[in-house]
Amino acid sequence: MTMPKVVSIVEVGPRDGLQNEKSIVSVEEKINFINLLSKTGIKRIEAGSFVSPKWVPQMADSGDIFSGIEKSPSITYSALTPNIKGLDAAIESGVEEVAVFGAASESFSMKNINCSIEESLKKFEPVIAKANTHNIKVRGYVSCVMGCPYEGEISPSAVADVSKRLIDMGCYEISLGDTIGTGTPVATKRLLDSVLNVVNIKQLAVHFHDTYGQALVNLYSALEYGVATIDSAVAGLGGCPYARGASGNVATEDVLYMLNGMGINTGIDMEKLLVATQFISEVVNKVPSSKVANALLAR
Amino acid sequence: MTMPKVVSIVEVGPRDGLQNEKSIVSVEEKINFINLLSKTGIKRIEAGSFVSPKWVPQMADSGDIFSGIEKSPSITYSALTPNIKGLDAAIESGVEEVAVFGAASESFSMKNINCSIEESLKKFEPVIAKANTHNIKVRGYVSCVMGCPYEGEISPSAVADVSKRLIDMGCYEISLGDTIGTGTPVATKRLLDSVLNVVNIKQLAVHFHDTYGQALVNLYSALEYGVATIDSAVAGLGGCPYARGASGNVATEDVLYMLNGMGINTGIDMEKLLVATQFISEVVNKVPSSKVANALLAR
Repeated sequence: MTMPKVVSIVEVGPRDGLQNEKSIVSVEEKINFINLLSKTGIKRIEAGSFVSPKWVPQMADSGDIFSGIEKSPSITYSALTPNIKGLDAAIESGVEEVAVFGAASESFSMKNINCSIEESLKKFEPVIAKANTHNIKVRGYVSCVMGCPYEGEISPSAVADVSKRLIDMGCYEISLGDTIGTGTPVATKRLLDSVLNVVNIKQLAVHFHDTYGQALVNLYSALEYGVATIDSAVAGLGGCPYARGASGNVATEDVLYMLNGMGINTGIDMEKLLVATQFISEVVNKVPSSKVANALLAR
Repeated sequence: MTMPKVVSIVEVGPRDGLQNEKSIVSVEEKINFINLLSKTGIKRIEAGSFVSPKWVPQMADSGDIFSGIEKSPSITYSALTPNIKGLDAAIESGVEEVAVFGAASESFSMKNINCSIEESLKKFEPVIAKANTHNIKVRGYVSCVMGCPYEGEISPSAVADVSKRLIDMGCYEISLGDTIGTGTPVATKRLLDSVLNVVNIKQLAVHFHDTYGQALVNLYSALEYGVATIDSAVAGLGGCPYARGASGNVATEDVLYMLNGMGINTGIDMEKLLVATQFISEVVNKVPSSKVANALLAR
């Protein structure tokens, strides 16, 4: 259990964030947002989702986004691809990394992607295999790792099982999502104790939502375990569909402030990050849910 | 270094919180607020401040508040008393615990209370002595423990020095205030490493502001050291005079949520707490800065 000296931030604002914002954001605005993020020092940006526009209309323009952004060679721009059709579209758009989105809760899996966990894994198998033959890395998301809006608490062993399956199928990384943000430090430790039995710490990312203000302290608990990859969204973009008016993703600015204070290197420039914050906050017409952004932008 | 099993919350909303809110809050509203807090299971409430109304007009009614509230015998209602005049007024109002307010930063001391740290300690000495002869316990606040709006970083040894002086003069407890909320976990540990050389852990409270969203993770770091007294304010009342629009005190609801999740007992009922949250948020006409309150009140 050693604190990492370097942490890799995965900026999920353009996808997980904007997908859960009410405002309509144009292709041009999304491209501008991603271009601003590319200037901050962030090395991984989840830029879109190749999914049926019937289900997620907010992401219907992901192809245009991938062809419109100014790609920096040092940055990986990734996209969600739930099926082969999505993967093919992503390949066509030149996407270098994709992700599949599984759950540790049966009820959430049924309500969110309309199939059991087992069925979802079966669907992901050919997606992961095909991606790997194209030298495209695949990230595996596991949602509801510390609680489910339908089932309540989720057992860490259920999370470990799904995580192991995704790794065995060819995912290079597992991102553990506290989708409804109910986790606290003790639950975080219990979760990691279980998952680290089956997934190497270098293959593990944490994706915590700040619905109950616990994301940073949970991230800290994960850092104490040596986890060195953190998902976050500028301005804390994205609400919580299970608690109206509540916060979504932990804000990149708040994570960065903590890591900076702890002497952990991310390569990200706070001032440049705040430029992206200010831009996207005006676009979605919302005060950032990042306390750091609010304090620093008030200067 | 053992996590405490029980934590005592000191609710500072009626004083530190309301003193820094722009809205004018009437005596009756303050009394109603404190009466609601008294029903939550909280055992310590900072209810007012006996200080010149010229300097702090928001607290001019503290005498009326102490005579108007329904006092529960199991709760300690305390007040700030910067000088003998204030202490005498507090004694007259039947206050059982008082507090003096020192700083670890020379510049902050000069700007805030118009005297050097040394002069402030000299002024507190007779206040503490007289209170103790009346069997009134005295808490010693030390502000700017992890940063000063004028000087930037503050050395932990400066905090330890002031803390020891206050203990030696007769304070039974030291509350370490991260007044501008710039602390992070590493700074929190450095601070406690220094202060715990001179103050017993049982005499130590932490008072963290959430200006940069770091309060909970810093509190967690303090809990890891065994600190078992936490100051917080319902709804995160109180802004930050040094960063307009920024958050003030860490919200009691967010602290409680974390402690509940960690199995640490406080005796506080979340639902009853939210009644007080809703009441005072309507009074000050502000959305709570507590993420827990926003998520739970949206149900």
